[in-house]
Amino acid sequence: MISKYIFGHPFDTEAVVEAVEIKSGCPETGTFDFSDGFCFTCPLEKEDRVYGLGGANRGINKRGYVYESDCSDNPNHHEDVRSLYAAHNFILLTGSRLVGLFFDYPSFMRFDIGYTRQDMLQVTCKEANLNLYVIEGDSPLDIIRQFRHSIGRSYIPPKFAFGFGQSRWGYKTREDFRTVVKKHREHHVPLDMVYMDIDYMQDYMDFTVNEENFPDFAGFVQEMKDEGVRMIPIIDAGVKIKEGYSVYEEGVEKGYFCQKEDGELFSAAVWPGYTHFPDVLNKEARAWFGDHYRFLVDQGIEGFWNDMNEPSIFYSEEGMKEAMELVAQIEEKGQENVPFFQMMGKLQSLSNSHEDYARFYHNVDGAMIRHDKVHNLFGYNMTRAAGEAFARMVPGKRFLLFSRSSYIGMHRYGGIWTGDNKSWWSHILLNLKMLPSLNMCGFLYVGADLGGFGCDTTRDLVLRWLALGVFTPLMRNHSALGTREQEFYQFEDPQDFAHVIGVRYRLIPYLYTAYMKAALTDDMMFKPLAFVYPEDEMAVRIEDQLMLGDECMIAPVYTQNADGRVVYLPERMMFVKFLPDGSLYTEIMEKGLHYVEVALNEVPLFIRENCCIPLADAAETVETLDTKHLSTVGFDGASFTVYDDDGFGMEYEDPGHYTTIK
Amino acid sequence: MISKYIFGHPFDTEAVVEAVEIKSGCPETGTFDFSDGFCFTCPLEKEDRVYGLGGANRGINKRGYVYESDCSDNPNHHEDVRSLYAAHNFILLTGSRLVGLFFDYPSFMRFDIGYTRQDMLQVTCKEANLNLYVIEGDSPLDIIRQFRHSIGRSYIPPKFAFGFGQSRWGYKTREDFRTVVKKHREHHVPLDMVYMDIDYMQDYMDFTVNEENFPDFAGFVQEMKDEGVRMIPIIDAGVKIKEGYSVYEEGVEKGYFCQKEDGELFSAAVWPGYTHFPDVLNKEARAWFGDHYRFLVDQGIEGFWNDMNEPSIFYSEEGMKEAMELVAQIEEKGQENVPFFQMMGKLQSLSNSHEDYARFYHNVDGAMIRHDKVHNLFGYNMTRAAGEAFARMVPGKRFLLFSRSSYIGMHRYGGIWTGDNKSWWSHILLNLKMLPSLNMCGFLYVGADLGGFGCDTTRDLVLRWLALGVFTPLMRNHSALGTREQEFYQFEDPQDFAHVIGVRYRLIPYLYTAYMKAALTDDMMFKPLAFVYPEDEMAVRIEDQLMLGDECMIAPVYTQNADGRVVYLPERMMFVKFLPDGSLYTEIMEKGLHYVEVALNEVPLFIRENCCIPLADAAETVETLDTKHLSTVGFDGASFTVYDDDGFGMEYEDPGHYTTIK
Repeated sequence: MISKYIFGHPFDTEAVVEAVEIKSGCPETGTFDFSDGFCFTCPLEKEDRVYGLGGANRGINKRGYVYESDCSDNPNHHEDVRSLYAAHNFILLTGSRLVGLFFDYPSFMRFDIGYTRQDMLQVTCKEANLNLYVIEGDSPLDIIRQFRHSIGRSYIPPKFAFGFGQSRWGYKTREDFRTVVKKHREHHVPLDMVYMDIDYMQDYMDFTVNEENFPDFAGFVQEMKDEGVRMIPIIDAGVKIKEGYSVYEEGVEKGYFCQKEDGELFSAAVWPGYTHFPDVLNKEARAWFGDHYRFLVDQGIEGFWNDMNEPSIFYSEEGMKEAMELVAQIEEKGQENVPFFQMMGKLQSLSNSHEDYARFYHNVDGAMIRHDKVHNLFGYNMTRAAGEAFARMVPGKRFLLFSRSSYIGMHRYGGIWTGDNKSWWSHILLNLKMLPSLNMCGFLYVGADLGGFGCDTTRDLVLRWLALGVFTPLMRNHSALGTREQEFYQFEDPQDFAHVIGVRYRLIPYLYTAYMKAALTDDMMFKPLAFVYPEDEMAVRIEDQLMLGDECMIAPVYTQNADGRVVYLPERMMFVKFLPDGSLYTEIMEKGLHYVEVALNEVPLFIRENCCIPLADAAETVETLDTKHLSTVGFDGASFTVYDDDGFGMEYEDPGHYTTIK
Repeated sequence: MISKYIFGHPFDTEAVVEAVEIKSGCPETGTFDFSDGFCFTCPLEKEDRVYGLGGANRGINKRGYVYESDCSDNPNHHEDVRSLYAAHNFILLTGSRLVGLFFDYPSFMRFDIGYTRQDMLQVTCKEANLNLYVIEGDSPLDIIRQFRHSIGRSYIPPKFAFGFGQSRWGYKTREDFRTVVKKHREHHVPLDMVYMDIDYMQDYMDFTVNEENFPDFAGFVQEMKDEGVRMIPIIDAGVKIKEGYSVYEEGVEKGYFCQKEDGELFSAAVWPGYTHFPDVLNKEARAWFGDHYRFLVDQGIEGFWNDMNEPSIFYSEEGMKEAMELVAQIEEKGQENVPFFQMMGKLQSLSNSHEDYARFYHNVDGAMIRHDKVHNLFGYNMTRAAGEAFARMVPGKRFLLFSRSSYIGMHRYGGIWTGDNKSWWSHILLNLKMLPSLNMCGFLYVGADLGGFGCDTTRDLVLRWLALGVFTPLMRNHSALGTREQEFYQFEDPQDFAHVIGVRYRLIPYLYTAYMKAALTDDMMFKPLAFVYPEDEMAVRIEDQLMLGDECMIAPVYTQNADGRVVYLPERMMFVKFLPDGSLYTEIMEKGLHYVEVALNEVPLFIRENCCIPLADAAETVETLDTKHLSTVGFDGASFTVYDDDGFGMEYEDPGHYTTIK
């Protein structure tokens, strides 16, 4: 049962697409205070757990910290960080009470979940203009399914998107990309996608290609496709200010860029230098920006990643002017260190500043809405621009599309990657913990930069992280310019990488089925153990294992120099290890604590009692995967219903897509 | 068996104080290459583990990363950081070979321990001028005891230093300190020390006290002592440049500050603004600087912490000049973002720059030694200055003394705290992992900022961290200006803090004994399980439990929202929980994996089979602790020999200090 409470005059985010009963007054879930904006408070009992918040930082159980919905380009996913790239304002309380709450509010919002006091939950925002959806149900999963249904079906990517992708910020030329593909093929490391980061563009201009490096881009895209590989270019939010650049000139002419109060265009420095932001909250501007993707689609491109769309701002003209005035003062003052820290603080505060968010406006159906009031909707609507455009360009065909920034509602148009993590062991676990939270909020096509984006990685870290990535819908090795190169061929013993990535392909029939079932029935693909074994006191505490689909549990190794890990089995299960010789190690294990040995070149998986999963033979691309001849692994007598389709069409309901195997 | 190999012309660090047999040529432990500085290489087999490096980052087993000895004021103890405050160049290899190696080299050194290749160890430095000590023995502990013996007995603090200390950067006035003490006494939270961070000084000038805030400092120190509390002031490395400030004027007059090549004094901006560095590598200057501690000793001070002694440099005159020239250029260039990143990079690189380290010199017995060649000895010799001075001022009396920066050798003069950590759960574990590594290198009086120095903490994090701190010789809650206040009285239910800190006091007879035994027999107080159970494959992998003394194992809870943790028992043990009502929960547990429940207000401990430990009754200061009437907890029939003394004297060998209880 979903009830909607309207406070003040909410901005229509279009997150919820289902008609929901509107109630007046306030729900009885907690107390409401409107004396200073909006403040919702409710007590937390000892046994209460709080789930949700999608792409937020920290645990599966969000209790014990304060989180902010304030989409930010923050590459430091440190434990203390309150806000990352997303604003997913759905939480679920379980324990002494059971309720789901979606605070549909597009600006800065604060979730104090037992931070100020361990026994208090408080949700606050500056203006009491929001829709609050209160969802009641029989179980956490029941509530989540109702919520997911209300926000509409999750994005479904083409099937090739379940293959492995290699990426690095720094690939520039055709030769760079050819080398990546060649090395994978030579060593029989499966590969379906290579990602193109910002350097493929001419001067970082959206919808351009550097012609010197790619004299025949369409030909190059086809050449790669002939190798079984799709090129996936990046698109950034800001459009470079440059005379003669048609996207810029058109946008100016049509009034499709964000303006300041005085009607001047707002300028923000990002990778291309100063840019204007397309006003993706304006329907016409959104359609116009989306149509530009055709430039690349026409050259054979079938997938994109949208970046810098919080939107990220290195500095604005106004901010830089203020900073330089301060620097000049400091030069005069000279000898003291306090001005040094002031200067550093000022310069650092230039990026992604709330002051800049209040400097520009969106034109929403003729109303000028100041950006900071709707800040968290930018990435959502940039990605919507692309998704809506693809549907116009090639109706009925799926495109690969994912974004860095998001709000609930965007899950209908694309997936997300979890942004600029680091080559830290702790970020394997952060990757794992975010998966069920994202699923609750509608985001199913998700994944992290495997091996770590920032900082120098190590061989063992890449292998262990890949062994988690084997299970995430988006499986991509990506890293930053200036860090240690981390393609498999940078390390000794490439066959270990071939094996681990190969396991992914053997699992695709299972993973694709689990994904489609979750998307088509508003289910979660990854669940906390607490949702499946709510009566098991050990299971409800687990933060480093997840249920995958209805048949599996995953428990990756995420510490260095470990030969295995401790795992808790909430029921009798089959422990499966994919061994480097291609064979499987299987062992039935009883409910309880176990230490399982897992070598660096092995992939562990647990199958639930009386279940089995399908396995394909090894393949090097999704297209060449033989999905007609599957074997199974699991308990005797179990059966599994496989979903399969052509990988591009949208006829998901066709019963011919389902086959039951034993 | 220790052998010394001399390469080139080493600087005498005075780390090793025992006469050691000198051998010629190179040891057979690995291969040596002198073609480009110094390079030692040896293969790593799969089963090899590498221990040591003292205050370095990451695991107990250091394998899998690259570490640098390059004492740095780096408050970001992130997983990827290669260098923290210390240079402890001792490593121990175990597995396919067993050997200890001490690379006695006072400048930048790199330990690639399976980073570039997982199967290779490589130690490199720029100049082949170093002493290499190779230690062979029967076991890791045998090698460590030999090494420890060669570097001299570890510092022994006064007994009050085993009490609890409260600290925060930001306490300024007498009232601030009185409030801290009053709150502790009111709520019966034990307290022995309150730390005075930089604000007690006049304008951050060493060996001054702000007279407005402390009109009668000696009287105030006595007033606090009457409450059972000792004030522990900070001393920074840099001496403020200020006319009329006697320390500055004396230092200039006597030539005791570090000079540049041209004979001008080197100026570095730190907290007081521009400062000069006392040349603590110059014997006379060291004695002169040490003698200044008398200013505070004469006012009743019995303990100090030495800070900023890497030495930390915010910027030098030369560096700032270069940066400002760059800023001016960027202002001219205007519109582009590349200069913005250049400017930020330049400003950030001003702090603790290697360029500055090459700008000043030490006068060592008349020879001018460029600082970068001996950089890692600064904190060591600043602390030595104090330690040597105390021995002159009050012979035979122990002072509390610890430092941020250190080199092996400094362990004879003081302890260390592990610097500016953060209020992160992962830093509880980092705290734990560093303990045995530090012990190997001679540092026994050690501890971390409990609750976390940087970032905002939470109540549960402070409690869990205190429950580890209960066992560390230095037990201090310390936090940074601008972060959430984290004294116990900032949170609900203060009695939980009273209980957890109270457990520390009940354990002091045990902890003091374990400390003294380790100090007097060159033993480790905290050992990896691998050293005690080398044949137990599970035990050797454990990175989140430690052996404490000869009788105990500790296994703190270090994750949020956990009601307990999984623990591995390498033998039959007694699980002891100190319950909030003052009673003990005890349970004999068999060897193997267990999940143990531990509430936020409980302290867990494991006692080895056939062992027992002494317990005192609760007390609120070390002085009022009744050490004559001890009870025991542990296995029936076990006995324990308690060490006790007057807490200040140095007659450690007196047999009257030992009492055996059952």
